[in-house]
Amino acid sequence: MGNNVTPHLPPAWRGWALMLAAAAATFLLGLLAASILQRREEARQKLPLQPIGQWETDSAKWGVNYPREYESYKRMTDSTARTKYGGSYPRDYLAETPANVILFAGYSFAKQYQQARGHAHSIEDVVETERVDDATPATCWTCKSPDVPRLMDKIGVAEFYASNFNSLEAEITHPIGCLDCHEPNTMRLRVTRPALREAFARRGKDLAQATHQEMRSLVCAQCHVEYYFKEDGDYLAFPWDEGAAPEEMEQYYDASHFADWTHAISRARMVKMQHPDYEIYKTGIHAYRNVACADCHMPYRTEGGVKFSNHHIQSPLLDVANSCAVCHRWSEEEIRRRVESNQDKVRQGRQMAERTIALAHFDIAAAMQAGAGDEELGDARKLVRKAQLRWDYVAASNGMGFHSPQECLRILAAAIESAGRSRVESARILARHGIDSPVNYPDFGTKEKAQAINEAFIEGRPSKLLRQ
Amino acid sequence: MGNNVTPHLPPAWRGWALMLAAAAATFLLGLLAASILQRREEARQKLPLQPIGQWETDSAKWGVNYPREYESYKRMTDSTARTKYGGSYPRDYLAETPANVILFAGYSFAKQYQQARGHAHSIEDVVETERVDDATPATCWTCKSPDVPRLMDKIGVAEFYASNFNSLEAEITHPIGCLDCHEPNTMRLRVTRPALREAFARRGKDLAQATHQEMRSLVCAQCHVEYYFKEDGDYLAFPWDEGAAPEEMEQYYDASHFADWTHAISRARMVKMQHPDYEIYKTGIHAYRNVACADCHMPYRTEGGVKFSNHHIQSPLLDVANSCAVCHRWSEEEIRRRVESNQDKVRQGRQMAERTIALAHFDIAAAMQAGAGDEELGDARKLVRKAQLRWDYVAASNGMGFHSPQECLRILAAAIESAGRSRVESARILARHGIDSPVNYPDFGTKEKAQAINEAFIEGRPSKLLRQ
Repeated sequence: MGNNVTPHLPPAWRGWALMLAAAAATFLLGLLAASILQRREEARQKLPLQPIGQWETDSAKWGVNYPREYESYKRMTDSTARTKYGGSYPRDYLAETPANVILFAGYSFAKQYQQARGHAHSIEDVVETERVDDATPATCWTCKSPDVPRLMDKIGVAEFYASNFNSLEAEITHPIGCLDCHEPNTMRLRVTRPALREAFARRGKDLAQATHQEMRSLVCAQCHVEYYFKEDGDYLAFPWDEGAAPEEMEQYYDASHFADWTHAISRARMVKMQHPDYEIYKTGIHAYRNVACADCHMPYRTEGGVKFSNHHIQSPLLDVANSCAVCHRWSEEEIRRRVESNQDKVRQGRQMAERTIALAHFDIAAAMQAGAGDEELGDARKLVRKAQLRWDYVAASNGMGFHSPQECLRILAAAIESAGRSRVESARILARHGIDSPVNYPDFGTKEKAQAINEAFIEGRPSKLLRQ
Repeated sequence: MGNNVTPHLPPAWRGWALMLAAAAATFLLGLLAASILQRREEARQKLPLQPIGQWETDSAKWGVNYPREYESYKRMTDSTARTKYGGSYPRDYLAETPANVILFAGYSFAKQYQQARGHAHSIEDVVETERVDDATPATCWTCKSPDVPRLMDKIGVAEFYASNFNSLEAEITHPIGCLDCHEPNTMRLRVTRPALREAFARRGKDLAQATHQEMRSLVCAQCHVEYYFKEDGDYLAFPWDEGAAPEEMEQYYDASHFADWTHAISRARMVKMQHPDYEIYKTGIHAYRNVACADCHMPYRTEGGVKFSNHHIQSPLLDVANSCAVCHRWSEEEIRRRVESNQDKVRQGRQMAERTIALAHFDIAAAMQAGAGDEELGDARKLVRKAQLRWDYVAASNGMGFHSPQECLRILAAAIESAGRSRVESARILARHGIDSPVNYPDFGTKEKAQAINEAFIEGRPSKLLRQ
């Protein structure tokens, strides 16, 4: 305390000396400012912009006016980048987490479930997925191409959704691009997909009132959300009428007895969640501080004195220096370690939930094999539906919980709790049918083993789950 | 893009104008600097410091030299401050969360469990707690008074711990104060309690090498940690030999078959966790960024040009402007909302764990009533011990998970998972004994009801848990 080292000048003199030094520095700053302003002026000397058609779906045409944005956009063709839990390569979720095969038994996600590659691959990836067949509705195209808003304008929104997927293949050729988020010529951000606008309207909110900063997330929220196809005409809708938390979506789905499929092992009526990225992000610290999706996934860059958004949309962990480190002045390594330490915790919570829910499905199936009927199994099935809806809300989202680790872990804890209750319920039902030994769980330790188990259940020759 | 509004001056002129304005501002800054330096000089004109004795336990004597620190310290006599989940008043945890009574059945914490008041009340609060009786060892004094290091020096550390609590009451009269953390005269921070130094030494670390910033947390870690009394002589020790995560502490305790008590309902051998605040803080973002306990709980203040640490140690939520807001430039209301939103999630996870663990204890008791023996119940009891150790690691800590919400929720998820597995195990055991109906759980919805349930179990007339 009180032992600062200061030269023995009278205090007033020190102030004057400081002032002189500052004045010299100011002179140099002035020279620098003049030079910067001159360069900016030069950079603005652009060629006149080419007009862009109202339904211009070819991003290359937009790229003539915005070469930097377009060149960075084209880098999304890369499908090799890897982070600890994400990246742009087609990571095989089922091989990585075979329990997922069991959780999706009887549903297409048990056949093939891979990490999506970059936007530039949206057309080839949806066409090639094994989840698409002759009965697939055109609704599955909705997020894949700027040809979609063009077609919706041409044939009508409801008509688009009601079409067959294959019937539109010739018309839909451009991967996700400029038109999806921008108005031609003004470049204003806009929402081109009806579902987001409709979901807002049903909650009394007008998307047209959104600020530019809000739009820098809302254009992403056109697709990076939980959605479902309404039974009538496969109309795409977001289940947000009660709110965007999993409990509120559950309330929405339960009200209409909605199910995506009936589980092949437990016969529970299940809901599949689809990447509720926006919903989870909204509960996290970055949204709380008004940081938009684009701030981290499309960080500003400067080239030749011009500032632009990097349109190579990717994990911020692949560009820490321009994303995280703009606000968090730590080393890249420190940032990565901190992010991964939170993701590790979420991964651990997911794994516990995955295992508990898989066992809960088998427990119900065991009770069926012991003679339990649908009425008796009602509560156990409701609880496993509840558990899996929560788990999937987290698991289907990108970022391994990074966008809101606290909320993700809260939800996973609730998933584990419900699955545990389902298992207790099944154990009692088994007891009622004279079974008191542990269920004979089959080995689902690899994707192939798990898929073989599912096939056997589907084909009516299920694993023998009772020991007696 | 490219539509900045700038006055139509040639770029070079703009730079020169900027420079002139800066020079004027610099002149005024110089005047200000001179004035500040002069004031600092005046503030340093102190009276000579009074010498402080090596074992001066009366903080008032230290206060003669350090009036600002002492005056702020004295404000810890307040026991009315409230935050959403904490504060300095004697909050009754058992009334607030009656499930806790069930979790501690057969242990003193089921009788009385209150939020500690400020350090100034440490003597009266430990003397008055209903958990102290004639058999209480002097070890319970360890964290309560600067008279403790004085006595340890006088009679020896092991001898101190081996004494009876009541036998030292006349010697221990000063509440937690200056001597506990400071070296007299130099004011250097130091560790006066052996357990922390010993725990570090066993892991090959020398506390003497700690930096000043580390010491600003380590003085707190003398007491705000998980500790236990070694069976031999009630010697105080920290269970950190395998690490400070609950899994690692569990490994440590399991290795020596340690238990604090046997649960009155389930007969499981339990471990009570004691506020592992330091351990949890070390896994959180603030520790990661090298923010010390004192930075938030004893923030710097300035009075009359002198900077000092506020020794009114309390929840930062009671002084957001001087703690959180120094780094987080948001409104106090925004900060509080964000903190509470994380605490709400942890509270929700805790509640799920509390209920699941309470039911797990009853399930085991039900199996005992159905005729199950100790060997049969071994796994179910191990799982409930595992679950409660994790839950308590979070629940016993201060801050409702704020210090590391991700880690706390990860741990709570694991607690819920283990408790669920214990319940499945018990359901199977019940089945083996012919019981297939749900356990007849007693109503533990209030502290009084829960305490009556415990009493009945202890007195050998337990609730009838079987319906048949």
